[in-house]
Amino acid sequence: VPRPEGTGGGDLPITDRTGLRRLKERGTHDRAAMDAILDEGLLCHVGVNDGTPVVTPMAYARVGDHLYLHGAPANRTLRLIADGVEACVTVTLLDALVLARSAFHHSMNYRCVMLFGAGAAVEDPEEKFAASAALLEHMAAGRSGDARMPTESELRKTLIVRFPIEEGSAKVRSGGPKDDEEDMGKPIWAGQVPFDLVARQGVPEDGLPEGTVVPPYAAAYPSRRLRGKGRHTT
Amino acid sequence: VPRPEGTGGGDLPITDRTGLRRLKERGTHDRAAMDAILDEGLLCHVGVNDGTPVVTPMAYARVGDHLYLHGAPANRTLRLIADGVEACVTVTLLDALVLARSAFHHSMNYRCVMLFGAGAAVEDPEEKFAASAALLEHMAAGRSGDARMPTESELRKTLIVRFPIEEGSAKVRSGGPKDDEEDMGKPIWAGQVPFDLVARQGVPEDGLPEGTVVPPYAAAYPSRRLRGKGRHTT
Repeated sequence: VPRPEGTGGGDLPITDRTGLRRLKERGTHDRAAMDAILDEGLLCHVGVNDGTPVVTPMAYARVGDHLYLHGAPANRTLRLIADGVEACVTVTLLDALVLARSAFHHSMNYRCVMLFGAGAAVEDPEEKFAASAALLEHMAAGRSGDARMPTESELRKTLIVRFPIEEGSAKVRSGGPKDDEEDMGKPIWAGQVPFDLVARQGVPEDGLPEGTVVPPYAAAYPSRRLRGKGRHTT
Repeated sequence: VPRPEGTGGGDLPITDRTGLRRLKERGTHDRAAMDAILDEGLLCHVGVNDGTPVVTPMAYARVGDHLYLHGAPANRTLRLIADGVEACVTVTLLDALVLARSAFHHSMNYRCVMLFGAGAAVEDPEEKFAASAALLEHMAAGRSGDARMPTESELRKTLIVRFPIEEGSAKVRSGGPKDDEEDMGKPIWAGQVPFDLVARQGVPEDGLPEGTVVPPYAAAYPSRRLRGKGRHTT
């Protein structure tokens, strides 16, 4: 079963949409940095123009230079992407509140990837199967070896689209607040309140057959935090 | 200082954009349910059409029947909203991975609000000041009483927009996987892996003056989880 891998080297090109007009120090087009964020996130927000803008949260998985998105064939956003319309896919990880002495300099630490482009429906049954496996692996490493994999009929009932990682950028804010000099001596607490997305122990369904093995990701879901320490796996 | 309150009663109207075409059981137009999600979230994803779709993560705060968004006056998404273009604001809270026996029935538990509409720039200095306070209070209850509040000059350098809560819906998935009958006896672990967004203890900046009080939200940030138990406050 294929696994999300093959982190792209080098940079994505700088375009009108990804020129990082402001706060350039927070932006990067480096593929490895972008892939690390994409591989850590669990949800993306997909924007399309359906007469007016529509932003929908979706699961996804990265495989090489693409993301896969999936859902019911009636899903309007997926149908528009399958039809080849322009879309924006954004993945955001919240790391901390940044509390400055002044209201003005409050901020958040986050890591975010925005991708622009046009996707396409995945029609080939083998690629559809592989994408289904990748979507499971993205949720929990090993899951595609444990779950009952899709039948041809189930694959026909699933709309999967491929979205290219070819135009986009990452933005990262980290560190503490940047206050003005005249506020530095004031007795106002300033600093960061860090957040972690923490998984609790898996909650099994009632009536699992006796002897059902509890997989590692259900016993203790691995941290998805990267923070430059390498991905923690089971 | 104003606080986000005044949860709207009743339902938002059902429109073409919010008719909840599929999986109706997951959707609601109930304002109290929507406000609970909006008040728990820390980030929204704002979609506009800037030639092509653009989805940007932003901080926000709810006050009554509006959200406030803010940023630098050069922020393109905010400028478009200030100009009155149609936008979509989505807030998503991830609650759990839902691991079914079959790949096909894997899902996620989430709570999500999607709002549609046209916003407007906040021009009145008093409303701008109040919105700034609300944005701080949304990050950490009590912060607007602790931080050095904005000067007129700082308010001029901040673009704040108001976005109406008048067209939209909430979608909620909860509970375990729904597998097909023929998979129920298979020895495949199925259940939920719940997630919590957990705040760690605040990390103070170096050089805070001696005697600076550590506020409660920095010592132990309150849980934002609602889950029907009422909001936990300090």
